[in-house]
Amino acid sequence: MTDFQDDQLSCDDFLGGRLRLFQPVAGYRAGVDPVFLAASVPARPGQTVLELGCGAGAAILCLGRRVSGLDLTGIELQPPYAALARRNSDLNTIPLDIVEGDISAIPAALRQRQFDHVIANPPYYRPGAHSSASDAGRAMALGEGTPLAAWVDAAARRLIHRGYLHMIVKADRLPDLLTACDSRLGSIEVLPLVPRAGRAAELVILRARKGGKAAFRLHHGLILHEGAQHPGDRDHYVPEISCVQREAAALPWPEAR
Amino acid sequence: MTDFQDDQLSCDDFLGGRLRLFQPVAGYRAGVDPVFLAASVPARPGQTVLELGCGAGAAILCLGRRVSGLDLTGIELQPPYAALARRNSDLNTIPLDIVEGDISAIPAALRQRQFDHVIANPPYYRPGAHSSASDAGRAMALGEGTPLAAWVDAAARRLIHRGYLHMIVKADRLPDLLTACDSRLGSIEVLPLVPRAGRAAELVILRARKGGKAAFRLHHGLILHEGAQHPGDRDHYVPEISCVQREAAALPWPEAR
Repeated sequence: MTDFQDDQLSCDDFLGGRLRLFQPVAGYRAGVDPVFLAASVPARPGQTVLELGCGAGAAILCLGRRVSGLDLTGIELQPPYAALARRNSDLNTIPLDIVEGDISAIPAALRQRQFDHVIANPPYYRPGAHSSASDAGRAMALGEGTPLAAWVDAAARRLIHRGYLHMIVKADRLPDLLTACDSRLGSIEVLPLVPRAGRAAELVILRARKGGKAAFRLHHGLILHEGAQHPGDRDHYVPEISCVQREAAALPWPEAR
Repeated sequence: MTDFQDDQLSCDDFLGGRLRLFQPVAGYRAGVDPVFLAASVPARPGQTVLELGCGAGAAILCLGRRVSGLDLTGIELQPPYAALARRNSDLNTIPLDIVEGDISAIPAALRQRQFDHVIANPPYYRPGAHSSASDAGRAMALGEGTPLAAWVDAAARRLIHRGYLHMIVKADRLPDLLTACDSRLGSIEVLPLVPRAGRAAELVILRARKGGKAAFRLHHGLILHEGAQHPGDRDHYVPEISCVQREAAALPWPEAR
C-alpha cells in the first residue's frame, strides 16, 4: 500500500477548527469517537501519552491541542496512515512521534518505554459482522485483525504503575472489552455515551488504571443530543458535548462518589 | 442449621402489602433487589420459572404475585430458608415448588426439566470483600460460595431454547457477570439502576436469551430516586419505580430501538 496522493485527501476541521486533519477521502475517516476519547484523558503537561493504532492521528492530536506540553507517541500499522499522522502533526505544529508497527509485536525501541497514559480507539467490527469495505486500508482500520485482548495487553505492558488506559468502543463490544481486562488493570470505570434520552448507549469509554484496586464503576450515561428525535444534523448536541466536540473542552467525567 | 423459630422471624410487607414474607430477624433479609428482579421478567401466564438460590422466596413470589398462572420452582441450598420459602408460598397462596440443593449440583429431578425463565439474585460480595456476618445463614446468603460462572452455567442448562435469564447484581460485579456469560447465552441487555441523577449505577439487571443472537445492548440507566440528595428515607422514588416497589408493576424495560 503506497502513500496517499494529495488528490486522495481531504483536510477536515476538528474541535471547531482548532485542529485540521488530512484524511483519505475513501479510506478510514475519523468521526466523533477520537474526539471523545481525547477529551476523556486527564493528562497533565509534561506527561507521556501513547496511542495504539493512531491512524492519521485524530485522537492523540486532539489531546495535544487540549493539553499543552505533552510528550506524544503513536503506533500505527499501516505506513500510509503513519505518514498522514506525521503530516498532521506538522500541519498543526503539535509534536508527535510516530512508530510504524503492530501493537501485537511492538518494536523494540517502544518496548523500552512506559507511559503515563495509553489511549486506543480500536477497530469496531468483528470479522464478518460488517459489510465489506471497498477500500483495503479502511477495511483494515475498521476490521478486527487484532483481538481486543491484544489491545488491552499492549496497553497494560506500556503503562507505568498507576498509569491510565482510556479506550472507546461501540457499546456492543463492552462484554468483550471487560473480559479482555485482566488483573493488571483495575479501578475500571465505564462511561456510556447515549445518543439521546431513552436510548441505549452507542459508545462506551473505558478508564482503567494499571495496578488500580478500586471496584468497577458503571457511570450513568452521558446524553449527547437534545430532544427525542434526531433532527437530521449534528448541531443539536447538549451544551457540554458541544464544548467537547467544537471547543476542545474536557469531557465532564463523573466524580467518584 | 435448624429451622427458624417463630420468635426469630419477622413478617414484612412487600409490594405495598400485596405480598407478606416471613424473614429471619438476624439472617438474610430481602431488600429492593428481588422486587426489581421480579419486575423485570416478561413472563406470561402458563410459563415456567425457576429461581436459583431463592432464599425465603422474595423474588419468585413477587413475580407470582404480579403474573398469575405461572408454574414456579425455586432451588435453595439452606434448608431453613427452603422451609421459609414453603411457608411464604402458603402464606400468600402462591404455589411454589421448592427443591433443596446446590445450584452447582442440581438434584436429578430438576435436571430433567427446562424452564421458560430462570431468575437469580446471586450473593453480592466476593470472599473477603465484606465484613464478616454475625449470622452463619446470612453469611452464606451474602458470601460467595459459588462463583458467578456456576450461576450462569446452571441457568443456561435449565433454560429452554429462547428462554430468558434475568439476574440482578451489584454494579461492581458486572465485569465478572459478563465474563461468565458464554456462547449459550446471547441478546444480552444490561439495565443499570442509578440511585439518582449524576450517580454511578448501584445495581444492574442482566437479561439474556438462550440461543439469542442479537448484539449486546447497554441501556441508559433507570433513575430510582428523585432529587440530588438522599432525603433520609425510601419514600422518594420516581413514580415509575414507586409503582414497581409498592404496586407490583412491571419494570419499564427500555424498548429495542
